[in-house]
Order: sequence, then C-alpha cells, then structure tokens
Amino acid sequence: MRRTPSLFNWKPMTAVTDSVALGLDFGTESARAVIVDRNGNELAVCESAYRHGQITETLPTSGAALPLHFALQHPADWIESAADATRKAIEQSGIDVDRVVGIGVDFTSCTMLPTTTDGTPLCALERFQNTPLAWPKLWKHHGAIEQTDRMNQIAKERNEAFMDRYGGTIGLEWFFPKMLETIDKAPEVAEAAEVWLEAGDWFVWQLVGCDATELPRSTCQAGYKALWSAETGYASDAYFTAVDPTLAAAARDKMPGRMLSPGQFAGTLCNASADRLGLPAGIAVAAATIDAHAAVPGVGEAEPGTLVMVMGTSSCHMLNARQGNPVDGVAGIVDGGILPGMFGYETGQAAVGDAFAWLLKLLNLDSFDQLAQDAIALPAGADGVMCLDWMNGCRTPLMDGTVKGAFSGLTLATTPAHMYRALLEASAFGVRWIVDVLRDGGIPVQRFVASGGLPHHNPAVVQVYADVLGSEIEVHPSQQGPAIGAAVLGMIAAGESKSGFTSVADAARAMAAVPESQKQIVKPNLDHEASYRELYHRYRKLADVMQTL
Amino acid sequence: MRRTPSLFNWKPMTAVTDSVALGLDFGTESARAVIVDRNGNELAVCESAYRHGQITETLPTSGAALPLHFALQHPADWIESAADATRKAIEQSGIDVDRVVGIGVDFTSCTMLPTTTDGTPLCALERFQNTPLAWPKLWKHHGAIEQTDRMNQIAKERNEAFMDRYGGTIGLEWFFPKMLETIDKAPEVAEAAEVWLEAGDWFVWQLVGCDATELPRSTCQAGYKALWSAETGYASDAYFTAVDPTLAAAARDKMPGRMLSPGQFAGTLCNASADRLGLPAGIAVAAATIDAHAAVPGVGEAEPGTLVMVMGTSSCHMLNARQGNPVDGVAGIVDGGILPGMFGYETGQAAVGDAFAWLLKLLNLDSFDQLAQDAIALPAGADGVMCLDWMNGCRTPLMDGTVKGAFSGLTLATTPAHMYRALLEASAFGVRWIVDVLRDGGIPVQRFVASGGLPHHNPAVVQVYADVLGSEIEVHPSQQGPAIGAAVLGMIAAGESKSGFTSVADAARAMAAVPESQKQIVKPNLDHEASYRELYHRYRKLADVMQTL
Repeated sequence: MRRTPSLFNWKPMTAVTDSVALGLDFGTESARAVIVDRNGNELAVCESAYRHGQITETLPTSGAALPLHFALQHPADWIESAADATRKAIEQSGIDVDRVVGIGVDFTSCTMLPTTTDGTPLCALERFQNTPLAWPKLWKHHGAIEQTDRMNQIAKERNEAFMDRYGGTIGLEWFFPKMLETIDKAPEVAEAAEVWLEAGDWFVWQLVGCDATELPRSTCQAGYKALWSAETGYASDAYFTAVDPTLAAAARDKMPGRMLSPGQFAGTLCNASADRLGLPAGIAVAAATIDAHAAVPGVGEAEPGTLVMVMGTSSCHMLNARQGNPVDGVAGIVDGGILPGMFGYETGQAAVGDAFAWLLKLLNLDSFDQLAQDAIALPAGADGVMCLDWMNGCRTPLMDGTVKGAFSGLTLATTPAHMYRALLEASAFGVRWIVDVLRDGGIPVQRFVASGGLPHHNPAVVQVYADVLGSEIEVHPSQQGPAIGAAVLGMIAAGESKSGFTSVADAARAMAAVPESQKQIVKPNLDHEASYRELYHRYRKLADVMQTL
Repeated sequence: MRRTPSLFNWKPMTAVTDSVALGLDFGTESARAVIVDRNGNELAVCESAYRHGQITETLPTSGAALPLHFALQHPADWIESAADATRKAIEQSGIDVDRVVGIGVDFTSCTMLPTTTDGTPLCALERFQNTPLAWPKLWKHHGAIEQTDRMNQIAKERNEAFMDRYGGTIGLEWFFPKMLETIDKAPEVAEAAEVWLEAGDWFVWQLVGCDATELPRSTCQAGYKALWSAETGYASDAYFTAVDPTLAAAARDKMPGRMLSPGQFAGTLCNASADRLGLPAGIAVAAATIDAHAAVPGVGEAEPGTLVMVMGTSSCHMLNARQGNPVDGVAGIVDGGILPGMFGYETGQAAVGDAFAWLLKLLNLDSFDQLAQDAIALPAGADGVMCLDWMNGCRTPLMDGTVKGAFSGLTLATTPAHMYRALLEASAFGVRWIVDVLRDGGIPVQRFVASGGLPHHNPAVVQVYADVLGSEIEVHPSQQGPAIGAAVLGMIAAGESKSGFTSVADAARAMAAVPESQKQIVKPNLDHEASYRELYHRYRKLADVMQTL
C-alpha cells in the first residue's frame, strides 16, 4: 500500500488578494450569509428564513399558548438557516471554499439562553422542552417587566456607577432581567442552567467547538446589554446579591468564558460546524458582535459624528464619538464598543418595520404600495392625525419597554393613509428626539447614513426622516450592512498575513464604503421644515401626556 | 249628462277606534314611515334610503370636491324618500288611506337650509346649484368652527342669560353658527336667502303648503338648537348685532312663521303633498320635532327620571325631569321641550354608529359579526387598549365639535378586536360621563331605555353599556322609536275627536309602551364593575390629557 508523505498533502497557499470573508448575520426572522472580497465586492448574498420564525403565540413542541409579551426562538433554526444560507452563498459565488479566510458573526441582542456546559440549549432537553422559559428569549421578549423594575430600583438606591453608562436605566430587553425572569418564574430551569449566554456567543461557541471555560464572549454584547465594562467587569456581586442571591450566584458561576472584542480571533472552525456549513475546518472565526453595531463597519463608516441608522423590524442608531460623556437616556456608551479607539453610542427605536407591519395587518391590507402612495400625497401632519410609535415600548430616550403606542387627532374622515403617514412621521420624530438628546449631551451628530432592509423596501420612510431632520441622509446601497460588517470582522480575525489589513477601520473602508460619486443621497424637502418643527413639538407633548396616563 | 249632488259625495265617518297615524322619521341616511294604530300595533314600517345619502365628498351637481368637515343633504331626497316610504307603508299595512287621521314628522337637527319665500331651497335655483353653502347643511356639518367660537366668545363677554340653558356653550352643529358660516363665506347666498329654517320645519311647511308668514316652526328645534325660549324668544337683537349685523338682520327678517310645540296642529295636508304621498288631502299635520326627542313618546316613556338613549349614527340621550336646574355641559334644557309639563334635558354623543362604521371601514372589514364576537371574548379593558370616542367631536359634556378621537395603549399585539372593544367601551364611558354630569347637577337618573337601530344591529353595545353603567337597560323592541313618537304626535294633532286621546302622555303610553311581561331587559355583568370603575377613571384622564394637546 502506497503511503503519501504528509509533505505531499500540500496545497498552494492562497494569495492575500484572493482572500474573502464570510459574514453571518442573524436577524429576527432569518439568517443571511454574505461573501465579500477585500475590495468590497459582494460575491454572494443569501438568506434563509428561520423555520419557526418568532415564537410569540404557541410553543412548537406542546402547542401551548404563550403568555402575552413572550417572544422566543428555536436554536436549531439558527444552525439550520446559517448552514442553508452559507451553502447557497458558496454556490452563488462560485468560489473555491479555500479562499474563505475568516468568518464573522453578528446577532440580534440581547437574545439569550441557558445551556448545559457542553452547549446544549436547555430547551433541547426532554425535561424542559415544554417549558417556555427554558427556550432562548428573543431580544423583543418583554416578560421581565417586574424584574427590570426591581433591578433598576435597587441600582438607583445603591447609586451604582454603571448606571451612568446606560442613561440611568437598565432595559427590559437586557441580559440580567431576562435571566432573573427565569430565576423567578421557572426556578427548576434556572437551577439546571450551567451556562447563561448571548445567542451570538452561543453560535460562535458552536463554530469553534471549545470548552465552556474558553467560550468566546463578545465585549460588545456584554458592554451594551449585560452591565459589563472592560474596567470593572460585570456589575458587582454586592449589587446582584441585593437584587437576588440566586442571580448573584449565577452571575458568578454560570458565566464562564473569555471576553473578546468584535473582530478578535475567537478560534478556528471545528470539524462538526465545518461539515454543517460546507466549509473546510480551520477557518478563523471572529468574536460575535451585535447586529446593529456590525452595520457601522458594514457601511464603511469609521469616523466619529455619523449616525448610522440600521432600520429593520426595530432600529438601532449607532454613533462613534471621541467623547465619552454620559448622556441621559442613551442605552449604552461603551469604550471601543463599536470600533476600537472611539466611544460607541447605541440608541434605538423599539418598533419600526415591526410597527409598519403591525399597522398593515391591523388595517387588513396586503401591501404598502398603495398605502405609501396615498400617505405621501397627504400634507405633512396627516391632517392632524398624530401617532406615538411606542407599540413595542420606547428604547431611546425613555428606556421603557412598558410604555405604549397611541394615535390622536382621529376623525370620521381619518383613512388608513392618515394612520400610515402619522406612523411614518412618528418614527421620524423618534429619530429627531434621539438626535436632540445626543446633541444636548454634547455629542456631535453631523451626518446620517441609513442602512438595513427598510430603506430599500420603503423609500418613503427615508424621505420623511430627511424632511423631519432637515438633513441629507445617505442611503447605503447594500441591504446587508450588518452582514458585511460581520464579514469585515471575520476578515480582521484572519490576521494581517491572510487579510492584508491592519485595522478594522482600514478593512471597513476598503470592503464597505461607497465611492463618493456613487453615493445615494436623499435630500430634505425644506418646504416642510416649519410644519415639522411645530409637529415635532406636538409629538413631544403627546409623548409627555401619554406617560402621565 | 247626470250630475251627482254634492251630498252624495258622502263617506261613512271613520270610528275613533279605526284611527291610525303616520309617523315620518327623517334620519341621516334614509326616511322611514310607520303606521301605528291607537293600541300600539305597528301596521307597517318602511324605509327609503336617500338617493344622495350624506353629501360629504363631492357636490352632486358639479362634482366639485367639498371642503373637509362639510356634510350636506339634497332636499329632493327628503320628498322622494318620504313619498316612497309612505306609499310602501300604506301598501304593506293594507289599510284604507281614510283611516289616517294625523301625520307627525321628526327630523335630524340641526339640519337647516335657506329658501325663498315660496319655500324653494336656494340650492334648487340654477344660480346657486353649484354653491355648497346654498345646500342644506346636515346636523353633522362641521364647517362653522370659527363662527361657533365667535358666537360663544361674544355670548360669554356679554354674559348672555341664554347660555345657562345650554350648559354654557353654543354648539358647532347649531342653527345660528351654520347661518353665520354662510353669511361669512357665501354672502351672495345669505343675501338671496328669504327664509332660514330647520329641515324638519321645511318639510312640515311643504306638507301643509301655507304662506311663509304662517310656516309652522317647532319649539323643540328652536329651543334646543336656535337659542329660543318661550319666555324670551330668540337671543336678543343686541347679541346678534354684536356678533354680526347681517346675522342680526337675518334673525329679525328671515325667520318668519309661527312657533308650535311638538304634537300641536300645524295645518292640513295640502293637495300637492297629498298627491306625492298617495294620501287624501286634509289630514292633520303636527309640528315637527327632533328625531331623538320623538323617541321619548316613541318608547312610551312619559315619566321623569328615565334616560331614553336613542342610538344611531350619533346618540341622543333624553331625560325628563321636574327640575329645571342649569347643568354644566348639558346641550339643552327646554321647558316642555320633549313632553309638556316637564323640563327636557338633551344630551348626546356625536359619533356612535358612525364611529363603529368608520372603524370597520378603517380596518377594511365588511361586517361587525366576527369582530364583535372577538371583541366580546376579550377581557374588560381590551388588554390596555383605550379609546376616546371623539371622532366627531364631543357633544355632552364638552359641547366641542373640534376635539378629536384617540386610541392609546397600542402594542404590536393589538388586533382589530382590541380596537373595536376599546371603541365600544369608550362609547359606554361616554354615557356614564353624561349620567354623572346629570346626577352631579341634581337631576335624577333612575332607569335606562335603549332605542334606535343600533341596539338591534349590535346587541354587544347594550351589554357593554349595562356593564359600565352597572344598571339594567331596557331595550325597546321597536327599532323605530322616533318614527313611532312622530306617529304619536301626529295622532295628537288630529285632536281628541279623531284620536280619542287628551294628552301626549296618554297617547304615548297607549301607542308605544311595552307591557311589563314583554320587556326586554339587559342585565349588567357585575363581575366587571370594579374593572370598569377603574377603566372609566382612566378614560376620563385620557379625555383630560387629550384636551391639553
């Protein structure tokens, strides 16, 4: 029997210029895979819807009805959709899989779950498959209202310094309130949990297949959603103990792993995951990042002062700044949280595409086309119909998931187009409020870039935003900002020898920026400026009075 | 040629027991004719929709778009529909037309128009047929916002005593604001007008065919809608002059006629109208009354303390009392305005059936059936969704046609059924507010009777009203309360010799009351009492804050 010496297992080394990266972007309804080369060519973009979508009404196992405000996901969907999208993307691009040098992962956040030490989600265990609180909680799961109140109250009583980084409020959608909800309401699940983690970290863990003690956790997710900072780590044991001793024990004992910044090397693709994705083992994998935050490098933005608006079911508006001032109502301020060397400010609106979809369904309509046309034909201010877009709570600046939406100014002459225009305007007023809060806090906001799926599906929205802001908005042509950002981070994780890049900013500019001549700019219609200024004040007044109810 | 001596033109005299009366009820969308005998048997009920319905979008003549808030009617529709409904009713009843001894007329109010001295509506003149303000203004026409403000402001400045009878406010839907709107905006129409009058009075004028100086005007319509009282007549010339000298001149010179109480004899059916209706000339015709007010005798109610709720596109809630206290926010308090010998209190809700129909259209649905079923299955309070039912302004207690409706408590889980339940509850809270206002003013409210089309089309509404009021509600089986009330008044106009009745109360009891054993009572579900008390306070708070916007 002839034996091939190991030397002859040799392959030609891929030239740096051939290197491509895979970005995996996990959204609320689907996973997307993009393959991008060093010059920013998108060689493939493929999407794969989650089999179970958002689990909000009944549990897929038992069919039991879920309580109001529950939103869960199925972890098998993440694996299955990522594999499906990756295989299709490789095929679509026609590339040799050996050209893939790095994989980046971005994920909705805080989507989180309990697992055993081998990474098995508790909901996959037979004993817990019918227990809703053993399932991954999607970012928009709003079951932890009482827990959030308690954590906020005690943090305020104790004057916890970490509160300054979060605009003074712990969010309903964050990590520890969600963990505490399970401790309170499903103690048997909390007891069986060996590891609590973000879904993005869980997926990276699956990719690299390491020991729980080594599992790569994202500083971005921990910084924005889990009361963590590089200087002080998680909130103190004393604080957690004051909230609940079981929570303190879990924070101490059930959060193993290493903290890694977005783009840092987390490990190499393990055999099992390589088989699933149809890629060779050994590819560099980057630490996870939050989907919205990935959009900043994903639209090629590496300078301070640009608000990158990632508009989807909800919107995240990300800003880098040289200053690290605390700003009241800003969800998170993390040093290097978006890009190294700058303070990343995360702000957001809890319902944007989701609210539009909700209204469409409420009005029993199938398509936005006619509705948008009729709405745009109406005067600014929708004949007095005004909306408060809090159908999923208010993220920035109130950080309050319990406030609710409203319509006012209704008459017998109010049509679906009035309702839709009012909602569009409310969404724009919501952005303007965020910009005011940042600027009032001394943080420069000079440019606006719109990204995400919504500006492309619904161009009317960007025009109304531009009119209300009284500023140009650049619409980034890629509908895959976060996925491309993930690819940028994957490229960086591969190291300079394979990527040829020395910094995230360099990679972002090369792989994602649009040449000046090709930029797509939406200009504001300044005829509406005065009306919108007045209407914005009425919106703020509506927001004020609705909080008194 | 044989000539018949006039003696042989003789007919046998109809026995009093054979007497029947015709009630003509003019609603917002159609006219109804009922034929009722002395014992309350409804021998026929026929309806005929107005050919042009409510004219709110375009003028039927020119097709020109109407301004927002306009609501007009076509006078030919009233003639045509009344004739059609009457002829069908005679046929349906199978009676000899000679048995009809009296005709009563009730009409929406204040629906009003300008005419020439021969009764020709100005909109029927070629020169004015394309001028919207020459057309009859329907009660819900809201074009006189500015005029109403001016009339109120000056009345308050002058401390006009008449304001006490109207809860301190002149309504947007009343007679003189509508007249002033035409004076302000279409002076050529105002100048050409020779007579200004209520549509109900116009129709009675057409029936009896008298001279303009003799035209029968209803004290009920004048008392509730035109600042008139038996003691002092219309508001003073000095007041009108302070508002506008042209208005003062019109009030002085263009309001000819005789003031008659509901049920008073206005004249006999003239030949032309007899031909149109298919009835013999000479039948007694009663002075007109307001549709809602006709419902009080129309449901057989002649005692003080019963709130008769006439529920249709809008609702009027009528109450008789021994006391004549001014009550803040009550639209009208008229001595003998509903029935002789008692103070009639008129309160109302400006959008009820209209608001339900608007919501159905907004939600792009065809039928209430499934929606009502889903709405009733929801818990009291519609999972936090709350509505303010001011889509057509607020009649009692604010008397403000400019305030607008709202929905609050909206989330991504809000469905059409939530919206509908919230609107049902808002409508019930609106009634409870009215009852509170009356009771706080020292006016007893002891019983509730629901009448009009809505309780029959939509039984859910009466149940929610009963739950919110915490009281039984008697649903009067006739869907034609106002029409039957008109018939009662027609019977009275015929005089004791033909009707056998000596008072409206006697006639009402005999012709319209339901025997005790056959009463249809909706009992309140007291399980909801505590929730509804709390929800009612939230509704009042919503009403308060929405007024501050």
